[in-house]
Amino acid sequence: MSHNSSDRIVSALREWIASAPAGARLPSTRALVSRFEASPVTVQKALRTLTGQGVIESRPGVGTFVREARAALPQDYGWQTAALGTPQHRLPTVTPALRTAPNDVIALHAGYPDKELLPGRLVRTALARASRSEAALRRTPAAGLPDLQSWFASELASYVPTKSTPPAASDVVVLPGSQSGLSTLFRSLVGAGRPLLIESPSYWGAILAAAQVGVELVPIPAGPEGPDPEELARVFSRTGARAFYGQPNYANPSGAQWSADRAGLVLDVVREHGAFLIEDDWAHDFGITTDAVPLAARDHEGHVVYLRSLTKSVSPAIRVAALIARGPARDRILADTGAQAMYVSGVLQQAALDVVTQPAWGTHQRGLRGQLAARRDLLVDALREHTPAAHLEFVPSGGLNLWVRLPDATDLTQLARDCEARGVIVATGDEWFPAEPAGRYLRLNYAGPNPGAFPEAARIIAAALGG
Amino acid sequence: MSHNSSDRIVSALREWIASAPAGARLPSTRALVSRFEASPVTVQKALRTLTGQGVIESRPGVGTFVREARAALPQDYGWQTAALGTPQHRLPTVTPALRTAPNDVIALHAGYPDKELLPGRLVRTALARASRSEAALRRTPAAGLPDLQSWFASELASYVPTKSTPPAASDVVVLPGSQSGLSTLFRSLVGAGRPLLIESPSYWGAILAAAQVGVELVPIPAGPEGPDPEELARVFSRTGARAFYGQPNYANPSGAQWSADRAGLVLDVVREHGAFLIEDDWAHDFGITTDAVPLAARDHEGHVVYLRSLTKSVSPAIRVAALIARGPARDRILADTGAQAMYVSGVLQQAALDVVTQPAWGTHQRGLRGQLAARRDLLVDALREHTPAAHLEFVPSGGLNLWVRLPDATDLTQLARDCEARGVIVATGDEWFPAEPAGRYLRLNYAGPNPGAFPEAARIIAAALGG
Repeated sequence: MSHNSSDRIVSALREWIASAPAGARLPSTRALVSRFEASPVTVQKALRTLTGQGVIESRPGVGTFVREARAALPQDYGWQTAALGTPQHRLPTVTPALRTAPNDVIALHAGYPDKELLPGRLVRTALARASRSEAALRRTPAAGLPDLQSWFASELASYVPTKSTPPAASDVVVLPGSQSGLSTLFRSLVGAGRPLLIESPSYWGAILAAAQVGVELVPIPAGPEGPDPEELARVFSRTGARAFYGQPNYANPSGAQWSADRAGLVLDVVREHGAFLIEDDWAHDFGITTDAVPLAARDHEGHVVYLRSLTKSVSPAIRVAALIARGPARDRILADTGAQAMYVSGVLQQAALDVVTQPAWGTHQRGLRGQLAARRDLLVDALREHTPAAHLEFVPSGGLNLWVRLPDATDLTQLARDCEARGVIVATGDEWFPAEPAGRYLRLNYAGPNPGAFPEAARIIAAALGG
Repeated sequence: MSHNSSDRIVSALREWIASAPAGARLPSTRALVSRFEASPVTVQKALRTLTGQGVIESRPGVGTFVREARAALPQDYGWQTAALGTPQHRLPTVTPALRTAPNDVIALHAGYPDKELLPGRLVRTALARASRSEAALRRTPAAGLPDLQSWFASELASYVPTKSTPPAASDVVVLPGSQSGLSTLFRSLVGAGRPLLIESPSYWGAILAAAQVGVELVPIPAGPEGPDPEELARVFSRTGARAFYGQPNYANPSGAQWSADRAGLVLDVVREHGAFLIEDDWAHDFGITTDAVPLAARDHEGHVVYLRSLTKSVSPAIRVAALIARGPARDRILADTGAQAMYVSGVLQQAALDVVTQPAWGTHQRGLRGQLAARRDLLVDALREHTPAAHLEFVPSGGLNLWVRLPDATDLTQLARDCEARGVIVATGDEWFPAEPAGRYLRLNYAGPNPGAFPEAARIIAAALGG
């Protein structure tokens, strides 16, 4: 659409408004159309933007006027310090991995795939269809749109061995994104002040949600094959913990996938300790040389609580995820999501269901596999060629990231600053450790930036390391 | 669209599938088109629904097959009872006011306006436009879409006296609905185990969020003019509380609007005690004979934290709300929403902004005022004529509900059951009391059901009361 053209009018009018007295009348739409050689639609859009920004106001039937500009006096909010007290749980305000970056840098830090890896046409069509459907004006049940619950259940059921009981649609609770699912799980299954076992390193969003809820994290070392089952058993016994948070497929940040044997041993330990395994299958759609088979498919006694998100693979604007749990755990989860969010937008649920039930979704997923493989290999090659000091412990068989070890003497903060000064943004690994980091790492996202820039990025990291 | 037609095919095929052996092949799409005299699009839609329900699976290039039906064995999840322990904060699973009701009853219990009171055409157009925009495939900043932040700030600024400092766009945090805003506020400004003052009666969603967070509610009696400032001051002093949750405009459930004088006195008490007033302006768009002037507009020292939702007035599918706060409180709020939800769907934010910046939104709001007035008056008249035992303390000047007092001897549970047996669903008042109810009440929503049924509903309530 005429996005740029409307922006141009907004800028020009803002300049004029800045020097105009409060209450001054803007030229008529017709006059603006002719002055800016733009369509009436574009001019109206610009006026709506300026109204939204609070700099003009329209009085129907009279005209559009410059709003009274009011001086913003510096205020003293010091009294709040006493009222707020010390926070019960300290949270970081801005997380580097969520930073938005300007277009002219190579952004290796983000946790999302590039727009070109998304099923853009499917998403737009599905949203347009949902806008015409009943879902656009209706409230949905607290646990989710029944057809979407069915879809999540049947996706997981497709991995369940024939003789076992597959999950039912009623085991599914739809969520406004998986981050809120993490808080819900930690509140419902663990609770403030109680221990939660977690792989180390692990997803910073889970570490953040744990801080918000106030659960006590107990790190379990995890290698390329998964967490060590003996260590897990020892820590369960020692702490009396009743839950373990893990990512069996393409763990964020390391990219590790638990082997089938290891997964079986971990599940046995969890069962023996009468505990829950919170399986975060965030990368379900991002397999490259293997498939992400949910560990939840091997559990029939309600030990595994399964978290599956569509946000990263469908679109960041489709904030839809699901929790699949059985027994009393499911009831407690639903009570928490109800108190937290009441229900999820029906438009987003309808659009998500539409996307994942189109035949073209399968085609898209097959294409994505190839694109991720190519991008991953390009970044691996670039690092091997240009950044010999960066050590890649293994090449992940899925996911979006490489987890690169640096020399122990590396000053990560300085490195990140040096890289940024040269036009590359990296995420330093410390954020992914629930306690002290076990080494100096970078997490490099190969799915976000333009792969053509990988060699240059690798050279810049090497230069910063060498400097 | 061919919604009914596709449903008909789904039903017919489900019957056939129920009697078919696992692995049986479904007739080709062409054969189904001819058998059901439907279009290929309709048949494909039915097949997608069945795939989503997990009863069939398609193998590309081969055909569509009946999935193996697996017997659901009853499972024993008793071990979870020990793992979960006693909940730290007990939550109800289903809230009567959120119950979905069949079409053939008169549903006076719900908290939402009827679809015909929503700006349906504006919402659909806005969603369709958003589906074509950048917002459909992009992540938005944690605090919200900048233009939407500006709009929320400028709406509140329009009530701020000329000499005072208006809120800035950066004071706004966009939320996925106001319910999550309540939990965020209670966590960030109060904290588990600490006291929060609340009007009695008050919104059940706030009582629920308080239970989830574990704050200790301290009720403040509130009449048609608002809460009693002297009682408020006494309770602030006695408890050391640092926050008060209130609804100055058209409180849910009572419909009370604080008088300007009373609001000033309440704000003085809050200031004197170095406390926060959490202003829930849920009914901002539902004024009838008065306007909802935010109390936040009279505060320049960061004492009032303002919660404004668009979900009820724009569409239940547009889960978008905002918190406006200043100073360190705003930082703490943003840290919590980041940990809880990361960010809000850009499609919903873009669509919400589109709706509220259209000139037709103003037209819609003026029409809504008249419709609410007519509906309110019809229900008031019906109750006065047919339900003399129901006492209406005052006719609210805005909002969606009447708050009706019943004789003290009324058995509310029995009454609700008797009404429902006669085809009327009512919400009993007990849920709106943070502690013991001060009397027997019903909350009757005049914005939801067909107003033509109000006399019949009033007669049925009278019959149930008399029986």
